[in-house]
Amino acid sequence: MKVTQALISVSDKRGVLEFAQALQELGVKLLSTGGTAALLRKAGMDVTDVSDHTGFPEMLDGRVKTLHPKVHGGILARRDLPEHMDTIAAHDISRIDLVVVNLYPFAQTIARHDCTLEEAIENIDIGGPTMVRAAAKNHGDEAGGVGIVTDPDDYEGILGELRDNEGALSAKTRFSLAVKAFTHTARYDSAISNYLTALTDDGGRQAFPERFHIALDKVQDLRYGENPHQSAAFYREPGAAEGGIAGYRQLQGKELSYNNIADSDAAWECVKAFDTTACVIVKHANPCGVALGDSPAAAYRKAFATDPTSAFGGIIAFNCEVDREAAEAVSAQFLEVLIAPAYSDEALALLAAKQNVRVLTCSPGRSGGALDFKRVAGGLLVQSADDATVAVADLKIVTRRQPTPTELADLMFAWRVAKYVKSNAIVYCRDGMTVGVGAGQMSRVDSARIAAIKAGNAGLEIKGTVVASDAFFPFRDGLDVLAQAGATAVIQPGGSMRDAEVIAAADEQDIAMVFTGFRHFRH
Amino acid sequence: MKVTQALISVSDKRGVLEFAQALQELGVKLLSTGGTAALLRKAGMDVTDVSDHTGFPEMLDGRVKTLHPKVHGGILARRDLPEHMDTIAAHDISRIDLVVVNLYPFAQTIARHDCTLEEAIENIDIGGPTMVRAAAKNHGDEAGGVGIVTDPDDYEGILGELRDNEGALSAKTRFSLAVKAFTHTARYDSAISNYLTALTDDGGRQAFPERFHIALDKVQDLRYGENPHQSAAFYREPGAAEGGIAGYRQLQGKELSYNNIADSDAAWECVKAFDTTACVIVKHANPCGVALGDSPAAAYRKAFATDPTSAFGGIIAFNCEVDREAAEAVSAQFLEVLIAPAYSDEALALLAAKQNVRVLTCSPGRSGGALDFKRVAGGLLVQSADDATVAVADLKIVTRRQPTPTELADLMFAWRVAKYVKSNAIVYCRDGMTVGVGAGQMSRVDSARIAAIKAGNAGLEIKGTVVASDAFFPFRDGLDVLAQAGATAVIQPGGSMRDAEVIAAADEQDIAMVFTGFRHFRH
Repeated sequence: MKVTQALISVSDKRGVLEFAQALQELGVKLLSTGGTAALLRKAGMDVTDVSDHTGFPEMLDGRVKTLHPKVHGGILARRDLPEHMDTIAAHDISRIDLVVVNLYPFAQTIARHDCTLEEAIENIDIGGPTMVRAAAKNHGDEAGGVGIVTDPDDYEGILGELRDNEGALSAKTRFSLAVKAFTHTARYDSAISNYLTALTDDGGRQAFPERFHIALDKVQDLRYGENPHQSAAFYREPGAAEGGIAGYRQLQGKELSYNNIADSDAAWECVKAFDTTACVIVKHANPCGVALGDSPAAAYRKAFATDPTSAFGGIIAFNCEVDREAAEAVSAQFLEVLIAPAYSDEALALLAAKQNVRVLTCSPGRSGGALDFKRVAGGLLVQSADDATVAVADLKIVTRRQPTPTELADLMFAWRVAKYVKSNAIVYCRDGMTVGVGAGQMSRVDSARIAAIKAGNAGLEIKGTVVASDAFFPFRDGLDVLAQAGATAVIQPGGSMRDAEVIAAADEQDIAMVFTGFRHFRH
Repeated sequence: MKVTQALISVSDKRGVLEFAQALQELGVKLLSTGGTAALLRKAGMDVTDVSDHTGFPEMLDGRVKTLHPKVHGGILARRDLPEHMDTIAAHDISRIDLVVVNLYPFAQTIARHDCTLEEAIENIDIGGPTMVRAAAKNHGDEAGGVGIVTDPDDYEGILGELRDNEGALSAKTRFSLAVKAFTHTARYDSAISNYLTALTDDGGRQAFPERFHIALDKVQDLRYGENPHQSAAFYREPGAAEGGIAGYRQLQGKELSYNNIADSDAAWECVKAFDTTACVIVKHANPCGVALGDSPAAAYRKAFATDPTSAFGGIIAFNCEVDREAAEAVSAQFLEVLIAPAYSDEALALLAAKQNVRVLTCSPGRSGGALDFKRVAGGLLVQSADDATVAVADLKIVTRRQPTPTELADLMFAWRVAKYVKSNAIVYCRDGMTVGVGAGQMSRVDSARIAAIKAGNAGLEIKGTVVASDAFFPFRDGLDVLAQAGATAVIQPGGSMRDAEVIAAADEQDIAMVFTGFRHFRH
């Protein structure tokens, strides 16, 4: 069924003039309103105002213009039912076969710092969503129906199809446009609900709305989930910052798995925390080796040395371009995923020989600011991101002995690593390298022991290391384990009821200890 | 401003007759449509059809009835602007001050197994959401505005206010109704988008829609998140199964923290996995002690004995009523949260002496079926729940030696526990009790070592235990560690390239080993 009449009323005016001109050339009659009509007329086009079409004036400052049977009968009449076609003919209602409407993003309205509630409410569109939804509902079937265009990016494809198809849109196209349209209105009202339910009685906005709606776009179906008997998919948040794993680009290798993505996220977020050349190896969501180096290959070799057993089958991330030497170095081990902001041509050529290795690039930009989620049965814990960082000037030295400059540099390094290790986390470091990583333990003292044992198993000297603890020591026993292992300096949040006992234990054993003032639990 | 005219058109007819009658008694003129009008008329009420009101027939099988300026001018005209009031008067449009509309839940339409796409589409309401949104937009201010009622539970309060307030609704009430209304339409269109974007070309539905919308209701703001410098809130999924932590009821104690909720979820899901009296103690998201017992107190004592150090400040869950003896037993330790389906009066009286302890009840029903989420930067991993379970008949015995009946019972117990321990998980058990829990390690062999060391630290005999491994052994080294520790039987998924090597290692050391055929990674 040929498109005979279109109604155009858009907030996003990108390309709308060209689109309208092309429709007119195809013989489509145009209805329009307000700013869109003005724009088209200014370009010399012949458009009919909706109010002329309905014979009813636009009223109430534009609040009621398209909410009229002449419009909605023209949209909603089923093309396949002769009774419907007869009914609209009897009421002098002409078919509207194409509805070109998009809504001003409510999120942008309220993003303005000084936006008042009154302005926000006034910006809520009533007529627009109604036309979008009516047209989407009546997208029809092979016998005909309405095309609903909510995205300027679709103009070109639609014109192509109209030209190739004697001025008609296929049922398939109308359906996919309708699907997109309901997503458009769902997100519009979701943004309104998120905003309104976040308002407080004093006119402010609380961080967490009473009713919360999360919108996601699928990136890909996954072969399976965390385990092969679970099904899974990966979604991206619309408008997310560039730097997160969700913005990954895969250069080679097998399809990413669920666990690949989760571990790549952990590795990438951790490696981005460093300002100088760094390498992070992740296994089972924990860094099993982190190091700085003069070159990516040097950083990798140190990171690998932390725990060669765990590094087997790991995810390796760099915060700098991977060069030939680094590619060669990582190729010597079995790895699942390699992530870096960039690769030299030589590195890529070398990696190409290992086609099973998944090679990813991610934008080095920040991922930050977004909310963090933790799933529980029947609900969701939602929190602001853990984006606290500490500078040397923020540290409080609590022991008699001050850390030496070398110790201090390693303490800062260890603290950055500890943030990305699952709690309870204890991280022994030296020379910009992890020496023992105690992760995911139910007791801090066990984490301290385990990290020391692991260092020994890897053949690393633990004496003379510094240590980061992601949270305070509830008792002195944890600190005593570090001292026995031969650690010389400790960084931790402080804040325990028994800080005095722990500080005394450090002083007894000539350990330098600094407090950061905040902890980095991560589970 | 007194409510003079109401439009009533509801899908959920609960209480609508009584509400309409009460409105009529208050002198409110009633407009209605279709089924609602028929219901009211049948009860002898005087209602005006919307088509009589607009002077325009309901047409196109009801697709166009309320989409008319007489309706929407009456809803959208601003009560505070004389121009608007003059305009509607000039067009013979009367104010509609109360809109009582709710939408048939789209999710219920498509829940019917045989629901076709055509039926689903036909069920999408256009006029209803438009009235809801128009009325919500024009909820107005002190000068007056429209009340939008989308929830039958609000009828009573509204009538009370109308009666107390000379037939008018306060600005505050109208605003809160408007907020609720936009949530109603947001969720309506979100359900439509989720459904439509899940459809496949062959008419089926894929598990993961292309555009995914998650709706959440806030349970409570939390004092802080995983760390004190993070802000947080807890949300419940509307319609979630009863049995999850999100349905908790708190009987006493301080407010739950973010980590309390996360750990309580882990403890509760784990303890529900057992059919006989069981106790689980969780610390840092991992079970640090799990045991069966003849009584809850007996189960608790065994669970505590696994790792008394870690149990300090833990979350304790029971799958049965907590009696006096159990309450007394747990009171001897420092605990953060206690969860059980029920408590005896004596137990509650005893716990009341420890007002800091958070005492929760949860429904013992299943939590299952819902999707699991894992947050990554800029996106979300979504997967079906890990609800696989194994029966004795499913096990494959792969070693020369078969497990004894006692070993078999403990292997089944250990396997259930391992599912709830973070990967890599190695769990030594004996007599329905965990003896050593290796959790959250980057290498399986380390997890095996750690669990044995922890058992020793707790003074427990590890010789003669059985072991569960949440995933297969990539090499024989992990199994050798178990054998050296004195384990006599092992349960694991199998499926490694080196299964033969691992089975040979078990045979060499007279270990009985069974394969489950699936793994339980959990990160």
